[in-house]
Amino acid sequence: MSKKTMIVFSGDLDKAMAAFIIANGAASMGDDVTMFFTFWGLNILRKAQKVRVQKSMIEKMFGWMMPRGPEKLKLSKMNMGGIGSYMMRSIMKQKNVYSLNELMESAQAMGVKLIACTMSMDIMGIKKEELIDGIDYAGVATYLAHADEGNVNLFI
Amino acid sequence: MSKKTMIVFSGDLDKAMAAFIIANGAASMGDDVTMFFTFWGLNILRKAQKVRVQKSMIEKMFGWMMPRGPEKLKLSKMNMGGIGSYMMRSIMKQKNVYSLNELMESAQAMGVKLIACTMSMDIMGIKKEELIDGIDYAGVATYLAHADEGNVNLFI
Amino acid sequence: MSKKTMIVFSGDLDKAMAAFIIANGAASMGDDVTMFFTFWGLNILRKAQKVRVQKSMIEKMFGWMMPRGPEKLKLSKMNMGGIGSYMMRSIMKQKNVYSLNELMESAQAMGVKLIACTMSMDIMGIKKEELIDGIDYAGVATYLAHADEGNVNLFI
Repeated sequence: MSKKTMIVFSGDLDKAMAAFIIANGAASMGDDVTMFFTFWGLNILRKAQKVRVQKSMIEKMFGWMMPRGPEKLKLSKMNMGGIGSYMMRSIMKQKNVYSLNELMESAQAMGVKLIACTMSMDIMGIKKEELIDGIDYAGVATYLAHADEGNVNLFI
Repeated sequence: MSKKTMIVFSGDLDKAMAAFIIANGAASMGDDVTMFFTFWGLNILRKAQKVRVQKSMIEKMFGWMMPRGPEKLKLSKMNMGGIGSYMMRSIMKQKNVYSLNELMESAQAMGVKLIACTMSMDIMGIKKEELIDGIDYAGVATYLAHADEGNVNLFI
Repeated sequence: MSKKTMIVFSGDLDKAMAAFIIANGAASMGDDVTMFFTFWGLNILRKAQKVRVQKSMIEKMFGWMMPRGPEKLKLSKMNMGGIGSYMMRSIMKQKNVYSLNELMESAQAMGVKLIACTMSMDIMGIKKEELIDGIDYAGVATYLAHADEGNVNLFI
């Protein structure tokens, strides 16, 4: 048993899937896994439904332009106005591969720790109420404390 | 002598080059190097020629849209419809820098282990016959077993 | 106290910020931090002003098309012809978050080692005179020597 950490910087569907496939694999082998979501990666943790919160004009714009949760993420390549992402989701269902939503639930159920970066939340104007339940909130010092104990530390 | 692993998620020419430059550097210093190709990274391992294999409609589409091997990869930035990638390849030749093809051959000759991610192959409909010779096939558990022994583990 | 290394391959504003936030965090906790700038990441180290140097035609083109320093970098997502990058910079100022320029100065002041990849410089035709002061120059072997001593090694 060892410790793994990932900084999930990207909010792309494909990279988010890669991150959670690694997280689930490691957790199922008994590893302690911490995922630190920053910048666009925060979008993975957003609730699908709109949440009423107090925001400045510019925060509203950011919130409106960024995808809300795993069902809305796009591929980093070949998105083609959403066709590529749709194709990818269809194939995964057809081949019985877990969806990102299911991978996230599975990870949380196995004790993978999800941490939202508070500095990124502040910059992007994302409030706690907008993010899914069961996650932690912290900054770069907490990430570094986890990474210091990790034997595998990835930036995704 | 120590162990290095890389997840090669990207199929961009520049990132693939970075990955193989690191791999060659480490291998030439006696390190044990494992590269795990997943998602778009699989395209780096595709044979240049078209291979006749049984595919579903959607798998054919994916295969047709994605680049076949190192000569067809594009830059992640400034590709400009292929001009940037062409410029990059010309400069590298002019400056006597190894091409990606040569870097890959050199890596394999030095014993760098190339592993294609079977789950990504399944999702993208890529068959073993379409990938270059001398590589292995495995899933996330194998990656994690290698990474656990690595002192440098990168996600590219 | 331990050692951290980062390969900064990306020249995107957001990824550069993430890299320097981690570097500053680690350095302020007493860690030894080495950042190795390669490919597009070299643009982060470019001086803002134009520097007169001898270049081939193609090197001039590359130099002209790539951003000169932190003030000119663009977001990896939602750049929208510069509007997104402008918004991001405005918000950061408004929220009293360090700019990339300030993060870089702070990192250097705390002893974070910045290394420009000489091979990338050669390929892209970037000369030492064009890069900021106080940095080192080296190749992949130097990176690997640092990474071998690192307990956290990221590729950004």
